[in-house]
Amino acid sequence: MTPMKVAALAGGVGAGKFLRGLVRVVDARDVTVIVNTADDIHMHGLHVSPDLDSVTYWLGDAMDRERGWGRRDETFLATEELGRFDPEAAWFNLGDLDLATHLFRTRLLAEGLALSEVTERVAARFGVAARLLPMTDDPVATRIEVVSFGAVMDLHFQEYWVKRHARDDVKAVRFEGAASALPAPGVLDAIDAADVVVLCPSNPVVSTGPILAVPGIREHVAERPVVGISPIVGGAPLFGMADRLMPVAGLEVSALGAARAYEELLDAWVIDEVDRRLAPRIERELGVAVSVTDTIMRDDGAAEALARSALSLVP
Amino acid sequence: MTPMKVAALAGGVGAGKFLRGLVRVVDARDVTVIVNTADDIHMHGLHVSPDLDSVTYWLGDAMDRERGWGRRDETFLATEELGRFDPEAAWFNLGDLDLATHLFRTRLLAEGLALSEVTERVAARFGVAARLLPMTDDPVATRIEVVSFGAVMDLHFQEYWVKRHARDDVKAVRFEGAASALPAPGVLDAIDAADVVVLCPSNPVVSTGPILAVPGIREHVAERPVVGISPIVGGAPLFGMADRLMPVAGLEVSALGAARAYEELLDAWVIDEVDRRLAPRIERELGVAVSVTDTIMRDDGAAEALARSALSLVP
Repeated sequence: MTPMKVAALAGGVGAGKFLRGLVRVVDARDVTVIVNTADDIHMHGLHVSPDLDSVTYWLGDAMDRERGWGRRDETFLATEELGRFDPEAAWFNLGDLDLATHLFRTRLLAEGLALSEVTERVAARFGVAARLLPMTDDPVATRIEVVSFGAVMDLHFQEYWVKRHARDDVKAVRFEGAASALPAPGVLDAIDAADVVVLCPSNPVVSTGPILAVPGIREHVAERPVVGISPIVGGAPLFGMADRLMPVAGLEVSALGAARAYEELLDAWVIDEVDRRLAPRIERELGVAVSVTDTIMRDDGAAEALARSALSLVP
Repeated sequence: MTPMKVAALAGGVGAGKFLRGLVRVVDARDVTVIVNTADDIHMHGLHVSPDLDSVTYWLGDAMDRERGWGRRDETFLATEELGRFDPEAAWFNLGDLDLATHLFRTRLLAEGLALSEVTERVAARFGVAARLLPMTDDPVATRIEVVSFGAVMDLHFQEYWVKRHARDDVKAVRFEGAASALPAPGVLDAIDAADVVVLCPSNPVVSTGPILAVPGIREHVAERPVVGISPIVGGAPLFGMADRLMPVAGLEVSALGAARAYEELLDAWVIDEVDRRLAPRIERELGVAVSVTDTIMRDDGAAEALARSALSLVP
């Protein structure tokens, strides 16, 4: 174990896979994961936190590795049945086991607990030793402005991504509520206390982007050594829709473009073997150390090697 | 088919079983079922309407006949999983299929639809030909004041019944919100248009009681011929906890006591063979016609015979 305190900024699947490796390299109790909540959504009265749940299920060894999202041994009776009521309403797949998380969270929030308190209880249920924190206890929503057949629509991130399968032309992305959100209790302290801030291989626009948009977080991260892992491999994201959203943010869809998203923060950047040719340019143009390695996390061992590679870059 | 318009006041299981028989005797399209909503409860953010769902599932042939409540071929993964989060929180069994009903209802209510509109949509999903109406679109809650080890507690009906298994001494029952509730659209019209109002074999205190407590309903029922079926057979309820609650309302737990609950409304009363000896007394003391028959609804055929017997009493 490397004796090191880590604060990790995390989105969903890519972060979950990576974090399983990270906690094999450093003591999980020295890891604080600050998770995007801007794609949280209220569905049918329930508060759903997709990224928090992804990270929880991955770290709690409850994830479905093949599917990438949701729980292992999951069934979807409730959602399938909901489709029989109204096919239009059942676009967001809520697994039956997964529903328990949403029911539990929704009840505790209604009782007045903060999302950070609920997150701690959910993580405890899954035996997660790392500390999980939502980026904020306040409501923040990623809104995607799209144009579809000439009509402008302002969509919640999940409507854009899950309901409409990212098929629309994106004009703009904004984080509603971010400017007035406060970092959740513990977030800034964890960053301040960290030997390194790790930017997980997550979408720089809609996963780590909202986290860094919460006032104070970016400024505190900038004071710490920062190591990131490129979510873009060979010009395409490993998971998700970063290729659709990075151009809107003025970013090239490449390991270089992703690094540029963190330009003023980054000290070191890990890219995949297939992007080796970009290394000199990233080092030169961004002034960061670059490590080239295998970033495809086929299993926990590969994730561990990637985490070890990233932490070895800490100045 | 008997050409007759029927308005039925209904609680849960007993009503569900009876109504399956009723729609074999009269055209379902001539039946309006006015259902108790005072045991509706908000659970984990969801709006649950146990009696509406019971009647819907029974009339929609989706019920679990053996268990009496809930849906056939049901699984309980979400609730079982919720118990792993917090055993205390999982006292209300929400089946995975059943959850779809609650998710659908909760979303439509949040979108501004009235409970009566949602009820119509849920009934349509299950192919229910009778018209189902909640007694009111307004919130009404049956509260049970109990004493447990010397401490007075004010419980929601479901806490009393499902969570605490009706084990507490009951001091009082009240219908919170009833006095200011309006009958749901269509309720009074259905009663006025009915050739007979049928009081299903439901708990007179907490099932039909709240319905009759909504201002206007009792007065309109009083203007129509009224036939009731005793929910008490041989001094005990066939379903539920009427034996615990009737004494609190000053009612003897008998086919006579149950009839007394409707004293000023009733024209005719159906009791079970085992209570035959009570017939003369009910006729004499309450001045109603009494029919003695088999009221145990072992199957739809038995329920049909019971319904036929009840309707034959219509003056």
